[in-house]
Amino acid sequence: MNTSTALRTDRYELTMLEAAITHGTADTPCMFEAFGRRLPGARRYGVVAGIGRLLERIRDFRFGDAELAWLSGNEVVNSATLDWLADYRFSGDIWGYAEGEAYFPESPILIVESSFGEGVLLETLILSILNYDSAVAAAATRMVTAAADRPLAEMGSRRTHEDSAVAAARAAYIAGFSATSNLEAGRTWGIPTMGTAAHSFTLLHESEEEAFRAQIAASGPETTLLVDTYDIARGVETAIRVAGTELGAIRLDSGDLPTLVVDVRRQLDKLGAHDTKITVTSDLDEYAIATLRPAPVDSYGVGTSLVTGSGSPAAGLVYKLVARQRGNGEWVSVAKASTGKASIGGRKYATRVRDENGVARQEKVYIGLGPEDADALPSTERPLLQPLMTAGDIDDRHVGVAGTRRAREHHAMVRSELPAGAFRLGRGDPALPTTFDE
Amino acid sequence: MNTSTALRTDRYELTMLEAAITHGTADTPCMFEAFGRRLPGARRYGVVAGIGRLLERIRDFRFGDAELAWLSGNEVVNSATLDWLADYRFSGDIWGYAEGEAYFPESPILIVESSFGEGVLLETLILSILNYDSAVAAAATRMVTAAADRPLAEMGSRRTHEDSAVAAARAAYIAGFSATSNLEAGRTWGIPTMGTAAHSFTLLHESEEEAFRAQIAASGPETTLLVDTYDIARGVETAIRVAGTELGAIRLDSGDLPTLVVDVRRQLDKLGAHDTKITVTSDLDEYAIATLRPAPVDSYGVGTSLVTGSGSPAAGLVYKLVARQRGNGEWVSVAKASTGKASIGGRKYATRVRDENGVARQEKVYIGLGPEDADALPSTERPLLQPLMTAGDIDDRHVGVAGTRRAREHHAMVRSELPAGAFRLGRGDPALPTTFDE
Repeated sequence: MNTSTALRTDRYELTMLEAAITHGTADTPCMFEAFGRRLPGARRYGVVAGIGRLLERIRDFRFGDAELAWLSGNEVVNSATLDWLADYRFSGDIWGYAEGEAYFPESPILIVESSFGEGVLLETLILSILNYDSAVAAAATRMVTAAADRPLAEMGSRRTHEDSAVAAARAAYIAGFSATSNLEAGRTWGIPTMGTAAHSFTLLHESEEEAFRAQIAASGPETTLLVDTYDIARGVETAIRVAGTELGAIRLDSGDLPTLVVDVRRQLDKLGAHDTKITVTSDLDEYAIATLRPAPVDSYGVGTSLVTGSGSPAAGLVYKLVARQRGNGEWVSVAKASTGKASIGGRKYATRVRDENGVARQEKVYIGLGPEDADALPSTERPLLQPLMTAGDIDDRHVGVAGTRRAREHHAMVRSELPAGAFRLGRGDPALPTTFDE
Repeated sequence: MNTSTALRTDRYELTMLEAAITHGTADTPCMFEAFGRRLPGARRYGVVAGIGRLLERIRDFRFGDAELAWLSGNEVVNSATLDWLADYRFSGDIWGYAEGEAYFPESPILIVESSFGEGVLLETLILSILNYDSAVAAAATRMVTAAADRPLAEMGSRRTHEDSAVAAARAAYIAGFSATSNLEAGRTWGIPTMGTAAHSFTLLHESEEEAFRAQIAASGPETTLLVDTYDIARGVETAIRVAGTELGAIRLDSGDLPTLVVDVRRQLDKLGAHDTKITVTSDLDEYAIATLRPAPVDSYGVGTSLVTGSGSPAAGLVYKLVARQRGNGEWVSVAKASTGKASIGGRKYATRVRDENGVARQEKVYIGLGPEDADALPSTERPLLQPLMTAGDIDDRHVGVAGTRRAREHHAMVRSELPAGAFRLGRGDPALPTTFDE
């Protein structure tokens, strides 16, 4: 594993840089913007995630000797470009939506103000991180809705790349999950970790009873016993016989959950284990969780559907040049006109317009405005863009464990402000219209 | 980024280890197996990918001081378990399907023979890598089929986590893609890299013509010009006027490709640019590629659908304990009986049965047989399990750049042996039945 992130980049970023250096335009002041043309999966709102990770990885985006030697040896770019890359350190400004913020079609999620060369190089890294993390967060926030107030644990590490697993745990936590099974996510991002045993532990022993006894000897009766290796009713009976009625929880990982959970609750109560909780983990997505709302489930563990964005594994965000400065200092808005993929040129600022009850009603995008104009906006409009990097320096509030916790709190606030229609699970229009002010 | 992979693990692996140490069963000789109960997306065959990556990451699966301190500080496991982890280095045997091999429901893709403790710890890492890489390879091999003999380039880095992007490029290359846009995949795995310019480069300039001139000045007329920023017919005209008829290729990234490509080919020919190729890159998946088969396309670039497994972003492989040794040396087959998730216990060996024409007809799984019995099998059966690690030592043929190239060659051989029905793109039954011999 190489710690520099500089080659986690599409080759054409470097080819464009080389052509711009050759042509003398690499230093042209530019504005790039990351946005989505539509919300993934016809959902009601998107969730910005990955900002804290992105800022840390931009810091690692440096071309060291190893990277330069490889680019040179493979004749990817010419020597003038290699010299430029050797000195590269992003020195521009980045404005963006706070991590955990909701977004809508055409929301200017990230605005990069820098030279063409400095900004074009970051395209792939920015999109990789925002597209994956936001896809997971968009799925996770719906699961939080479906679960009502019951806690959710992220357990999908085995269903995605070993490093995206860590990012997925983080995105889910930001969106409101309570814990993760992934230890690295615990270490790196301070997320509570959880987990007790798999079927293999039961199968290691001569009987389920022996396995339960071994687990309780190590973890105490407050642990969670997995009861569906053989026969569930017998598993529950054995669990309470071995652990007593102070058993923390039982876990169900198979079967027809809506009826099964009712049966198991009844059995536990009959055995006197009124405080023993039931956690379920079998191929859940937001719809299965919603179906379980009337059932006596205490918590959920979600795997595959969460880490793969529940049907929308990439958020579909794009990164476009929206403005550039001419030699005379004049800024020009630019946009492509490709069929079905047109973009809106110009510098942007965005606010969330709220009604007299504080309920969000509009996503307002100002074209041609910048953050310096924000003070003049009405107080009913919550400004959405904030400085993430200034002259190449990262705003530390967004990174690390503290930034992750902050993003989680921000997302909870954002949810509290959205209209009720935002929490419908069915496909449909965005919960807020995006309006433009030119 | 931490280079140890040891915490890229579900917490319950460590909890189970602790319970097994406490109970005195951690050293029990065991066999674990990775397999899929069904093929993702009702496809005709699966593709094993990730083996070379996995072996390298198992090598990095060590608990160093930083990992142990975190586990201790967070009271994840007790001190006896910490001592055990400090000495951990996988010392067992791993047998598996060659990377690039096809697989079917219940194929024993990976068999881990070790103590319970050593084998249980690797569950999450094994599944993360095999599930993601195999999902991408399964999508990629179908795109290769759809493209007939035209080359495919992987361009999806921006649509998946920045590290899974590198793995996706590798999996696609193994399945038959020719190149990738991802530079890190070029460096780490020796995959040819490609890419020229995005719309932002055109928009940086006052006119499309100026942008094309700048690109050709840097890259020569053999480059690929992106012609759909404004108007395609005008873009093509400008491209040939600027580059001459020796222009390498034009790229189309939008529009109704089946008709558009025909129009553009006609226009190029009319301009005398008979050798200028057409490459298309607009939201392609295997179905869109198949639709373009009659069109005069020369090559394809595929992004989102490839790196997200084209509708099946995780291969659905699981890792189960299938046998354990009793204190008296006797091996016991074990299996869980959970509804809809039952597994088949016992040691396994597998072959691909071929008919007299060398066409694969059956996936044969021998239960209770081991590799030492392989010599006695009929010569029409191609053995599928090979040693990947022996007593903790990696078989170096599978890793690095050479291992990746070897996997690509193996996949081409495997494809040549599959029956014609394997290459149907529609949903359906596996191309080969899995038969069991007990």
